[in-house]
Amino acid sequence: MVYLDHASAMPVDPRVLAFARRYLEEEFGNPSSLYDRGLSTRRAVEAARGEVAALVNTGDPRSIVFTGSATESNNLAIRGTALRNRRKGKKILVSAIEHISVMNPAKDLQKQGFELEFIPVDRYGIVDLTALEAGLTPETILVSVNYANDEIGTVEPIREVGRVVHEAGAYLHVNATAAAGRIPIDLQQEDGIDLLTLSGNDLGGPRGAAALYIRPGVKVQSVMPGGGQERGLRSGTENVFAIAGMGEAARLAAREMADEMEREQAIRDRLIREVLEIEEAGLTGHPTERLPHHASFRFSRIEGESILLNLDTFFDIQVATGSACTSRTLEPSHVLLAIGLTHEQAHGSVVMTLGRSNTVADVRYVADAMRETVGRLRGISPL
Amino acid sequence: MVYLDHASAMPVDPRVLAFARRYLEEEFGNPSSLYDRGLSTRRAVEAARGEVAALVNTGDPRSIVFTGSATESNNLAIRGTALRNRRKGKKILVSAIEHISVMNPAKDLQKQGFELEFIPVDRYGIVDLTALEAGLTPETILVSVNYANDEIGTVEPIREVGRVVHEAGAYLHVNATAAAGRIPIDLQQEDGIDLLTLSGNDLGGPRGAAALYIRPGVKVQSVMPGGGQERGLRSGTENVFAIAGMGEAARLAAREMADEMEREQAIRDRLIREVLEIEEAGLTGHPTERLPHHASFRFSRIEGESILLNLDTFFDIQVATGSACTSRTLEPSHVLLAIGLTHEQAHGSVVMTLGRSNTVADVRYVADAMRETVGRLRGISPL
Repeated sequence: MVYLDHASAMPVDPRVLAFARRYLEEEFGNPSSLYDRGLSTRRAVEAARGEVAALVNTGDPRSIVFTGSATESNNLAIRGTALRNRRKGKKILVSAIEHISVMNPAKDLQKQGFELEFIPVDRYGIVDLTALEAGLTPETILVSVNYANDEIGTVEPIREVGRVVHEAGAYLHVNATAAAGRIPIDLQQEDGIDLLTLSGNDLGGPRGAAALYIRPGVKVQSVMPGGGQERGLRSGTENVFAIAGMGEAARLAAREMADEMEREQAIRDRLIREVLEIEEAGLTGHPTERLPHHASFRFSRIEGESILLNLDTFFDIQVATGSACTSRTLEPSHVLLAIGLTHEQAHGSVVMTLGRSNTVADVRYVADAMRETVGRLRGISPL
Repeated sequence: MVYLDHASAMPVDPRVLAFARRYLEEEFGNPSSLYDRGLSTRRAVEAARGEVAALVNTGDPRSIVFTGSATESNNLAIRGTALRNRRKGKKILVSAIEHISVMNPAKDLQKQGFELEFIPVDRYGIVDLTALEAGLTPETILVSVNYANDEIGTVEPIREVGRVVHEAGAYLHVNATAAAGRIPIDLQQEDGIDLLTLSGNDLGGPRGAAALYIRPGVKVQSVMPGGGQERGLRSGTENVFAIAGMGEAARLAAREMADEMEREQAIRDRLIREVLEIEEAGLTGHPTERLPHHASFRFSRIEGESILLNLDTFFDIQVATGSACTSRTLEPSHVLLAIGLTHEQAHGSVVMTLGRSNTVADVRYVADAMRETVGRLRGISPL
């Protein structure tokens, strides 16, 4: 097996499991319970908060709110911030390549009377700063731009985005699900970020925990009322196992990211070089401003889905065609349309995201498999 | 250790862990991915759906929607149903002893212009059917009554409640978090239930999965927009480990509930008899219409919190004073006030919920510890 879909589902790091499994097997207390068994899980949650805060250098761990998933963090960021600040204005700007869990909460607000505008991107997926500036009005309360895009790997100029957004007096939400643990994020340096989404699973932790950084002073309301856990912002008994696992994954990422990403980038660069030798193959996303573990391609005259199934069946190679979150629809990816691909081109997309299990020996195997698969599929293609 | 807080945090059943751990350790695919590794996790999710559906005999597994927590299920049930049906009416009825994760979403709707009315209960916590009938108007779209209460153990006459609610043309939501796996629930027989909340952890599964049963035809809208998983009702990549664990826990509960609850009830009955021999001790909740694993008491002139801490420190016995979800506030439990206790009485509450680890040998130990603790605390009490 060569697993190249680390954007859709990261295997849980065995060291994370070794660290966190006691919260499944022994320490099952409720962090809100007052006896010792509860307090020990409370301490585990707070230790994890510290590790997640350290990974993105927030300064204050209390700025980290744990949620159940990156989707929930994005909902809290978009709906929770817009609803809380609606008296200041009702306009929201969202980049045209945002993840569906940012897009759909924003569209939900639009139905409730908010004004929603999409910021275009260039052919590499870089947000158009001039268009962003033009879209910002005194009515604009919130802008959402991803740190890096999970489908095309492009890393955005977040500092510039932050400066423009803050000059206009709006809040900036940044979905860092794909970026965190892959490239350094420093919220004390990058002080233009008001809200930042982090996913536990994307760091190598188990599913069931994610976080939203909320810069102190930024006003957000809960979108999950209940017992009032997480300073009233996210109700529900804390999933201590998943939170502790996210904390350990964040600690490992902070320590190992530089070396591991240098390693993965070297493999990825060779992979891109080899795959681009295939006829009518192109890179999607930015050639240099991209996540170090991320390679994404387009192939004319064939379907990405056919490539995916062939690679899985005949070569035991797992890749994606876009975001798994939308892979069960027949619609072409809105991200690929936003960077100017036609419907036909957008359907020929393949995304490969590397992880710890991948080695340089995989490159030749994958490139050969791709060449053979693309050749065979084009041979039977009616196009 | 004698752990008597199975309402706040259930230890994960080791058999559940043995069953589900492969979704942490090996099968990490995304159920929306199209390759085989994704499809195998998709099958695991659907198998779990079948087991959960079977536990409450829904007939159609598609009526089960997986969420991330019981809090989220209650939010989806209350906010999702009210918002979707607001054109039919804007009145909501909620029993006075509902869990805070039902109460707070209902209060949230009230702020948005819905009319919210609380249905009183008698001194045992049984919902007042006359008051319910009186509260039902053509404007009423939704009623929420718990199957059984987690703080006082009382089981509600849900069939009667369902009949009254349906005669008035409203929907009935039932929070069965505390009841499922403890007493039989049959949704084909009890056809007055439109929405039913189930918690994975309360069945002995890991945290991170819960479910909402939605009777076919009942209109509910998502409160978590995004990738559109779970038929568009709950976005976010499925937590396969937690969902598979919930499924296995449901399967074990369906098979073993009758025997295990008979066993726990026998222990519980002796525990209640022994504890009630303590001076000025009283049972809270219904003497017979109560969950078989549930014992709840009040003691005059002392604080439940002091009892809890003393039992933990000196006897390694873990109990609760009410719902862990609200135990970090100084407010007395709204449930205990609703059954007519004074503030002072409500502060002297202790809740014991039994589980698989408890044996008949625990009864004497706990009763002696209680007697000693209550005696000592009353000796130093200023009251």
